[in-house]
Amino acid sequence: MLRLYDHWESGNCYKVRLLLSQLGQAFERVDVDILEGETRTPEFLAKNPNHRVPVVEWPDGRALAESNAILFHLAEGSPFLPSDPWQRAQVLQWQAFEQYSHEPYIAVVRFWHFTKKLEENQHLLPAKMEGGYHALDVMEKHLSGQDFFVGGRYSIADISLYAYTHVADEGGFDLEAYPYTRAWIARVREQPRYIGLTEAVGARVSKFSDLLES
Amino acid sequence: MLRLYDHWESGNCYKVRLLLSQLGQAFERVDVDILEGETRTPEFLAKNPNHRVPVVEWPDGRALAESNAILFHLAEGSPFLPSDPWQRAQVLQWQAFEQYSHEPYIAVVRFWHFTKKLEENQHLLPAKMEGGYHALDVMEKHLSGQDFFVGGRYSIADISLYAYTHVADEGGFDLEAYPYTRAWIARVREQPRYIGLTEAVGARVSKFSDLLES
Repeated sequence: MLRLYDHWESGNCYKVRLLLSQLGQAFERVDVDILEGETRTPEFLAKNPNHRVPVVEWPDGRALAESNAILFHLAEGSPFLPSDPWQRAQVLQWQAFEQYSHEPYIAVVRFWHFTKKLEENQHLLPAKMEGGYHALDVMEKHLSGQDFFVGGRYSIADISLYAYTHVADEGGFDLEAYPYTRAWIARVREQPRYIGLTEAVGARVSKFSDLLES
Repeated sequence: MLRLYDHWESGNCYKVRLLLSQLGQAFERVDVDILEGETRTPEFLAKNPNHRVPVVEWPDGRALAESNAILFHLAEGSPFLPSDPWQRAQVLQWQAFEQYSHEPYIAVVRFWHFTKKLEENQHLLPAKMEGGYHALDVMEKHLSGQDFFVGGRYSIADISLYAYTHVADEGGFDLEAYPYTRAWIARVREQPRYIGLTEAVGARVSKFSDLLES
């Protein structure tokens, strides 16, 4: 069975949980405590030297990191990744936008809220908020003309962008001025086999620390 | 003919120039002055609302942004992108690593040097240098076991990572302690149709400001 090295509140991990659920693919979850340094253990670094979750591991030991690469690989041949070359290029474009121009702002500020690090990062906050709102502006403009990001249908481009956008308010971003984005969030929620960010999933759940001890 | 909206010293743009040269694909270059705000003009934003180069434009008007998405799309069906699904996943993983864990450190510090903004960003420099060296550590470890990043042969994963690594010294990063990375840089330079970062290419070159006036 596929194994997902996961962190519950991470939007990057949630992307993979959401797609796996929508693919109907069984998987087990391993909770990795990123705040306790578990991604810096030799055991984890052997799976991803870049010490980040999510990592997906196959029964034969192959491991893949980077949420958007995982989505693209798992979605191949499914309705969640178009077969048309130009649409695939646009999926990759939006995934790159998400990881470079969206996540480092919207997800990072949310992380500061969660980890009580807002105070110590106060000097960086204005630039982070500005960058986050710019990303939302780009999304809103695009969504004003179409229901989903690529090819008029739900795809992994939507999953990648949805993960942190739908909880942007947890980082203090106000989506009031983004009606098209809010309508798109509602459309994503209506997709078959949708699961929420903290919804229980996975055929089996274990803790990474337990695996280390066994 | 393909048109590349380009900035000479940008490694992200260089990735596209290098691949197009190695594909033997004719293209014209349009120099966009990013420091003079040309990517914020309505004409440029119509091509990429996320105001960044590179952008590749086809004769029919389609435009694609994000360097790694452009590489993946242009390399499809060529020897620079493997056909094996697992190798393709690894290409995407390394491209995501580059854009999230490498470029924001190594390229950004280089940019501060070039634009004389090192002084005003002095408070951010230690974290940027640490992040950059971590990325180099990850690369060095991987390259200690293989000649290229994916599947034992030169691919767009190498192009993506080479672009800013081979000029990391321009941001003050010392590659002395990275012998495998230096050997890989030398191997990339030996590839057929290799061009350097500031090597003249493009069937025609124009300035974005001239296009605006015409």
